[in-house]
Amino acid sequence: MPAALIESIANLRDHLSGARRASATIGLVPTMGALHVGHARLIEQARRECQLVAVSIFINPTQFDRADDLARYPRTLAADSSLCDRLGVDVIFAPSVEEMYPSKPQCTVAVGPIADHLCGRYRPGHFQGVATIVLKLLQIVQPDRAYFGEKDAQQLAIVRRLVADFNVAAHIVGVPTVREADGLAVSSRNARLSPEERQSATALYRALQFADRQICDGVTDAGSVTHAAASTIPDNPLLKLEYLEIVDPDDMQPVSTIAGPVRVAGALWVGSTRLIDNVLSTPPAVLQS
Amino acid sequence: MPAALIESIANLRDHLSGARRASATIGLVPTMGALHVGHARLIEQARRECQLVAVSIFINPTQFDRADDLARYPRTLAADSSLCDRLGVDVIFAPSVEEMYPSKPQCTVAVGPIADHLCGRYRPGHFQGVATIVLKLLQIVQPDRAYFGEKDAQQLAIVRRLVADFNVAAHIVGVPTVREADGLAVSSRNARLSPEERQSATALYRALQFADRQICDGVTDAGSVTHAAASTIPDNPLLKLEYLEIVDPDDMQPVSTIAGPVRVAGALWVGSTRLIDNVLSTPPAVLQS
Repeated sequence: MPAALIESIANLRDHLSGARRASATIGLVPTMGALHVGHARLIEQARRECQLVAVSIFINPTQFDRADDLARYPRTLAADSSLCDRLGVDVIFAPSVEEMYPSKPQCTVAVGPIADHLCGRYRPGHFQGVATIVLKLLQIVQPDRAYFGEKDAQQLAIVRRLVADFNVAAHIVGVPTVREADGLAVSSRNARLSPEERQSATALYRALQFADRQICDGVTDAGSVTHAAASTIPDNPLLKLEYLEIVDPDDMQPVSTIAGPVRVAGALWVGSTRLIDNVLSTPPAVLQS
Repeated sequence: MPAALIESIANLRDHLSGARRASATIGLVPTMGALHVGHARLIEQARRECQLVAVSIFINPTQFDRADDLARYPRTLAADSSLCDRLGVDVIFAPSVEEMYPSKPQCTVAVGPIADHLCGRYRPGHFQGVATIVLKLLQIVQPDRAYFGEKDAQQLAIVRRLVADFNVAAHIVGVPTVREADGLAVSSRNARLSPEERQSATALYRALQFADRQICDGVTDAGSVTHAAASTIPDNPLLKLEYLEIVDPDDMQPVSTIAGPVRVAGALWVGSTRLIDNVLSTPPAVLQS
């Protein structure tokens, strides 16, 4: 049966009320569309764990810090619907901007120091926009479980705090990053890369792997790890490293001495496309204990 | 049957899950305790409209802008419980500060221009604290209906926007202000007044009534109405008017020419106690049309 395509909040609530009355487990996969194999992994896990799977497709304008990025964001609803059908999604919720923001909001989510580093430092207002739209989607769908990719590690950490801080009755599930054969993290923005850019784009994951090996080898000074990892990025006019940082995996604060599991995260401009990636690294002292 | 007194979020969710499965209508009356006849009115209305009535009693530290006000806020749990029992409340939720704020939150509610005037102007951070705790309580209880007094008109307007902006699935019910025989709005803070202060405290409502009469008589210039109303406050060392403003009843923005229903609101210091009150006024042109 094809997924029901629903555009209004009222119709979605109607549609879900039967499942809720029957105590069906509801899973939500929030997306901005342009679905790829990474999203498929989220949907497949939701399908295994929930009786009703809803995928939201909404390109949220309030989380874009650059107008050109919003304008260029891929819109592929027909292909997205086919993929959802193949994966057995029950409901696609694809509201308009007017449906989600009928008037200028008075209340938004403010995000604290967890948004001060990594992407939060370079994308002003981005995580306020993300947290606000995720809260709205969680209220509209009221899922038992909501699925987010680990590729957006800071987003995932913030969503976990959003749900804890506001006592939202949903369980947040993080799903591992899906990679191409050469290691590039799958992303909707990869579609924008020229063949030459695509080839160079693996530099980010290679730098993260380099950092991971240093940490596994027992290097504990975060500054020397990030410095050495950043210098593996080729001197190529297509590439510009925005950041490469080592942070605590929960509160996303910079770590200076690596004494436990850390998140190594980076953002790399490849031509006019900004890509992000991260790995979780555990120093040997922790593995032995 | 006496109300169940529950202190933990997990126990409350357990307790409510049966009612939710049975599709019982759940009503929430959020309070800071020190229950009075105004709260009783909220509870009675909830009792008439809902199958399960929960009263939360939590003195929320994050909404107090002054430490002495928090320290002096009356705490009367035994009397509050008795009143709830008499009114047929099903559940009292009385969590500790640690239960509600186990760690410093990363996510809070930011409130826009609706909090710029009236109390919001004089109590920095107050409505951010109110909006955040109300959102948390709405997530914990997940009520069908939540009841708030019109005495706190700006709070009620902000809660209505909170629920609309975040798509919270709860209906917000405003309940008219309860007054003493001489017009003083019932408030937990009235208990702090000395007999002499109590007598002078009616000046605020009298000023609001004066403004209402002017508006009903057709005066449309908000500045002259508030000026004239403020001058009715007696020249008494016990009394200090903090504000007396005329605002739009939905977005709480100042009105200069009165052309439709307006909220006339004021805050008056009586000794070291700050009291607030408001009336909804409708000019004659609107009544005739």
